[in-house]
Amino acid sequence: MLTLYFAPHTCALASLIALEESGLPFKTKKLNFAETEQRSPEYLEINPKGRVPALVTDRGVLTETPAILAFIAQVAPTAQLAPLDPFEFARMQAFNNYICSTVHVNHAHGRRGSRWADDPAAHEAMKAKVPQTMTECFEIIDEKMLEGPWVMGEYYSVADPYLFVMTGWLRSDGVDPARFRKATAHYAQMMERPAVQRALELEQA
Amino acid sequence: MLTLYFAPHTCALASLIALEESGLPFKTKKLNFAETEQRSPEYLEINPKGRVPALVTDRGVLTETPAILAFIAQVAPTAQLAPLDPFEFARMQAFNNYICSTVHVNHAHGRRGSRWADDPAAHEAMKAKVPQTMTECFEIIDEKMLEGPWVMGEYYSVADPYLFVMTGWLRSDGVDPARFRKATAHYAQMMERPAVQRALELEQA
Ligand SMILES: N[C@@H](CCC(=O)N[C@@H](CS)C(=O)NCC(=O)O)C(=O)O
Ligand SMILES: N[C@@H](CCC(=O)N[C@@H](CS)C(=O)NCC(=O)O)C(=O)O
Repeated sequence: MLTLYFAPHTCALASLIALEESGLPFKTKKLNFAETEQRSPEYLEINPKGRVPALVTDRGVLTETPAILAFIAQVAPTAQLAPLDPFEFARMQAFNNYICSTVHVNHAHGRRGSRWADDPAAHEAMKAKVPQTMTECFEIIDEKMLEGPWVMGEYYSVADPYLFVMTGWLRSDGVDPARFRKATAHYAQMMERPAVQRALELEQA
Repeated sequence: MLTLYFAPHTCALASLIALEESGLPFKTKKLNFAETEQRSPEYLEINPKGRVPALVTDRGVLTETPAILAFIAQVAPTAQLAPLDPFEFARMQAFNNYICSTVHVNHAHGRRGSRWADDPAAHEAMKAKVPQTMTECFEIIDEKMLEGPWVMGEYYSVADPYLFVMTGWLRSDGVDPARFRKATAHYAQMMERPAVQRALELEQA
């Protein structure tokens, strides 16, 4: 059995959607960030990094969104959530790693500046640049990366829930998503998928 | 044929080492960061993100270190640079994604603060915190992640060159690597590998 540790409105939603798409049986555990449960001694036993998502499996714990997404795809092959060909798989991983290392990180500078500096004035300076950095990322995504209708073209993959989560953050980053034609169409298509709707319900439950 | 675009003293060294380990034929192209060649129109055609590494293959360009490393391992199966089992593969990817999204990003705050804020005082505040954030990362790596002798235990994998590059950066981050017993032993072992020695020579050539 798989158990996903998550918190609402976080990147863990991508893994939740992927689990819903996979058809695999799974459970969820919701952490309360308002009470910083992600840094409780119990949770640090599961993920010493104090972050979500974490996927508990029979063989141990997995962390880091791109690794969890690829794992879900690989253990649910009938759902065809990742290409099998090494080059296409690497292209999908490159997309997911760009989100993980650059897009998500840029977003985090708007609310978690204390990770990278102690000075409150520096946090304000970081926050001020988020609309610009997120715009730059989505320009590259819209023009060079997102093939359409899905990230990998005709092939729906675990890259799609991950992009969906990032697009959903844009407004709170001070960016109008409508600027990005392909990402906006992608978001709307995702909202029509039953797995996405189930994951959003589960997130709120 | 594979062509790796790299620059000396960057994270691209991990991909260079992996290529040397793989036995695959490859070429390299060195970018001059002092002349910001990574942002030249020619290079932005190859990688619109303006970063290294980029791996040009017969089928297209791959970016993002964890994706490139896994690709090299998958197309050179006889070199056995990544586990085949999905769970073990995901554990390796989780390690590489942690480096990519957190360790490398923390390091970058010491020299590329202008990515995330415009105010020079904020850059100084970011720089000042690098020794602390890199220490925290390496405490988790040394105590919870690096099994020894290699990242994945007895199994040498593409996670090892990536960790090697990060450990090699610690001194410039204001951190004494000797504090981390396992990472220091790992670094010394890596230095004995012929593929690592060849990659370091190629980097300087
Ligand atoms: N690189 C990790 C990042 C995980 C991450 O930063 N998660 C955030 C939520 S989006 C978190 O748990 N934050 C809690 C905190 O910083 O205390 C991944 O992609 O899974
Ligand atoms: N997430 C990317 C990061 C690549 C990256 O930031 N590379 C640095 C060198 S370590 C770079 O090209 N910097 C050039 C610049 O910022 O202009 C990866 O893991 O490959």
